[in-house]
Amino acid sequence: MSSTLLHLECSETGRTFPWRQLATVSPASGRPLLARYDLERAKAALGPAPWRERAGGLWRFPELLPPPGPTGPVTLGEGQTPMLATERLARRLGVRACWCKDESFNPTGSFKARGMSVAVTMAAALGARELYVPTAGNAGGALAAYAARAGLPCAVAMPEDSPSANRLEVRALATECFEVPGLIGDAGRFLRERYAGREGVFDLSTLKEPYRLEGKKTMGYDLRIELGDLPDVVVYPAGGGTGLIGMWKAFDEMQALGWIDARRPRLVAVQMKSCAPIVEGLLAGREEGVPPTAPRTLAAGLRVPTPLGDRLMLRALRATGGTALAVSDDEMLHALREVARLEGLLLCPEGAAAWAGLLRLREEGWLGSEERVVFFNTGSALKYPEVLALVRPPDPCRPLRLVGDQEA
Amino acid sequence: MSSTLLHLECSETGRTFPWRQLATVSPASGRPLLARYDLERAKAALGPAPWRERAGGLWRFPELLPPPGPTGPVTLGEGQTPMLATERLARRLGVRACWCKDESFNPTGSFKARGMSVAVTMAAALGARELYVPTAGNAGGALAAYAARAGLPCAVAMPEDSPSANRLEVRALATECFEVPGLIGDAGRFLRERYAGREGVFDLSTLKEPYRLEGKKTMGYDLRIELGDLPDVVVYPAGGGTGLIGMWKAFDEMQALGWIDARRPRLVAVQMKSCAPIVEGLLAGREEGVPPTAPRTLAAGLRVPTPLGDRLMLRALRATGGTALAVSDDEMLHALREVARLEGLLLCPEGAAAWAGLLRLREEGWLGSEERVVFFNTGSALKYPEVLALVRPPDPCRPLRLVGDQEA
Repeated sequence: MSSTLLHLECSETGRTFPWRQLATVSPASGRPLLARYDLERAKAALGPAPWRERAGGLWRFPELLPPPGPTGPVTLGEGQTPMLATERLARRLGVRACWCKDESFNPTGSFKARGMSVAVTMAAALGARELYVPTAGNAGGALAAYAARAGLPCAVAMPEDSPSANRLEVRALATECFEVPGLIGDAGRFLRERYAGREGVFDLSTLKEPYRLEGKKTMGYDLRIELGDLPDVVVYPAGGGTGLIGMWKAFDEMQALGWIDARRPRLVAVQMKSCAPIVEGLLAGREEGVPPTAPRTLAAGLRVPTPLGDRLMLRALRATGGTALAVSDDEMLHALREVARLEGLLLCPEGAAAWAGLLRLREEGWLGSEERVVFFNTGSALKYPEVLALVRPPDPCRPLRLVGDQEA
Repeated sequence: MSSTLLHLECSETGRTFPWRQLATVSPASGRPLLARYDLERAKAALGPAPWRERAGGLWRFPELLPPPGPTGPVTLGEGQTPMLATERLARRLGVRACWCKDESFNPTGSFKARGMSVAVTMAAALGARELYVPTAGNAGGALAAYAARAGLPCAVAMPEDSPSANRLEVRALATECFEVPGLIGDAGRFLRERYAGREGVFDLSTLKEPYRLEGKKTMGYDLRIELGDLPDVVVYPAGGGTGLIGMWKAFDEMQALGWIDARRPRLVAVQMKSCAPIVEGLLAGREEGVPPTAPRTLAAGLRVPTPLGDRLMLRALRATGGTALAVSDDEMLHALREVARLEGLLLCPEGAAAWAGLLRLREEGWLGSEERVVFFNTGSALKYPEVLALVRPPDPCRPLRLVGDQEA
């Protein structure tokens, strides 16, 4: 069975556009395009519940993803990530059940791989000859890896103060890489200027093409398939927010497929105190995010002041009766150590922020004692040695020298 | 269906010992103990080929692993690692087919997780109350994670010049950690002295207990299950060598189960020029390894001068018509960059050494153009920022500052 992709739909106006050429944002609104499928045909093809037997991995549902080119999907083994039952964390929270969906088991050690596998597959299938992406860190490593896997040249630009692990992986994998002053927005401007007018070059920025979202949505399918049903609450560290938006889209698709009923998990976006555009937007009752004045946080993936998906994120949070909250770097560091000691899980700063947010939601009573919750660890802690170095060491422990101290 | 474990067998004398108490090395020879199963019963239980349908992960064959305690296996999602077809690498080599078995998709980013999941499960089930391990790096992070997951205190000791990522993860996860002068042997002595005579403390050093091997052997099952049959050649970066020995053991078990016939892949151990005890032992026609004089290499996991499994490794290489060879740090670095650019795979130094060895075997004609080969990437490159920093960057690329330079 193959893809049931029908067309691309403007997320603001609902206007539809053909998918058979390289698409960026909606010509109607400048906002993201959403891939729409013939879900009746997919339902007929998938049968009652064949997905239980489908082998793991992101591409196990070709019916619900765009059609790869003749050479097939560009894959590095993405999407086979464990849903870990964390009973000590459930007891610590005082809830019925708690799981950590650990996305660090993806290629390049982050959930960004899901999006890039599908986006690079389609960019290659539709004729892109060169790829680029601005990144706060992890998306750059993922694009560099999948572009190389596809045999396409790529360029990556990131803030010069991005985590060193991201800079190292991009240098090893990318065709060209640039470390620019400022934030991810400045990196994007730099690339657009550099490649302006060059033929066959394609921009894979978050939500500036429709297929990274399609890769991320598969996390929503995983919730249903791995838990047998959906949890009451899903807590997600939201920078660009594609994962959150993707899961929300997946819920609607699963309802059309008969996999779930009309109920939805309450979606929660966790951000950092210094960079909480969605939290501020929600509090202010706005449809858009509120850009922070000084976005500085140890959680580099959450340092996204003006996410293009702000409107969609806010809609997803409101539509599911969810919420958004911001935590501090100190809360995040404490959470990181707590989960490491309680469950042996070394979370990335963004994943640790999600756990810190969960603790706060429980303290405030927003989260009930009978609820079943899933929080996402979006990447590998190994990409953040600077942050791990701030985690309080055990006693006894000999003093630690950091990487590069030799050079010091 | 449950475990068919019968007893433990001395790898030198063949004498058997009961498994129901915590076991270390063979009382008969001081050499490793091997777990033996009732494979006839396992065969009857497994049927012709039920394993095709078994869900992924290390514990999918409880018949062929030791029995966990009442609370079940201590798991973090280990053993769901992709077998990546690498067609560009196959063309580069000039062979029929080439796969990379990417063990970086394991908890704590290394294949060590396979061994520790089973070893910690059994240590906990058999009454250990405190765990320790000396490590060249990755085993320490894995033990710390699984001990925490099991709710047991643990101590880790490693050479003070171990990769910083290993030191960081151990500090975040372990109950006690020590960075000692010298090599892994010195770390082991330090721990044995520190914990001498303390009740309920258990040493999880490589091959000093029988179950890390059982976890590693599952890589051998994966070869058969994921490829449909076994490859002609398996290239493995050998430090302690448990993976190599474990796969060799798995081949015999699979033959008894009727999964394979009497043919075996030729097993190849790749080591580093400055630390090649198995290569030297093989060349000298000896049954033991030849300790190096000055073991210094960027591939920290291969810096094991006197592996306790030397005799078993040499037997496995000879019995399968395999070989062993040593590569230089420069060959390793070149291999790392080549595979990154050709396939988008960022290998750890040990995995890159395996690819470098494969290139040499092909140049020397030991590897034929019609052969199907698998090489192992044993861990995540993210654990080796010091090594990645030595990989030649692309052009253009802005100069890179290393982690810790701020402090410099």
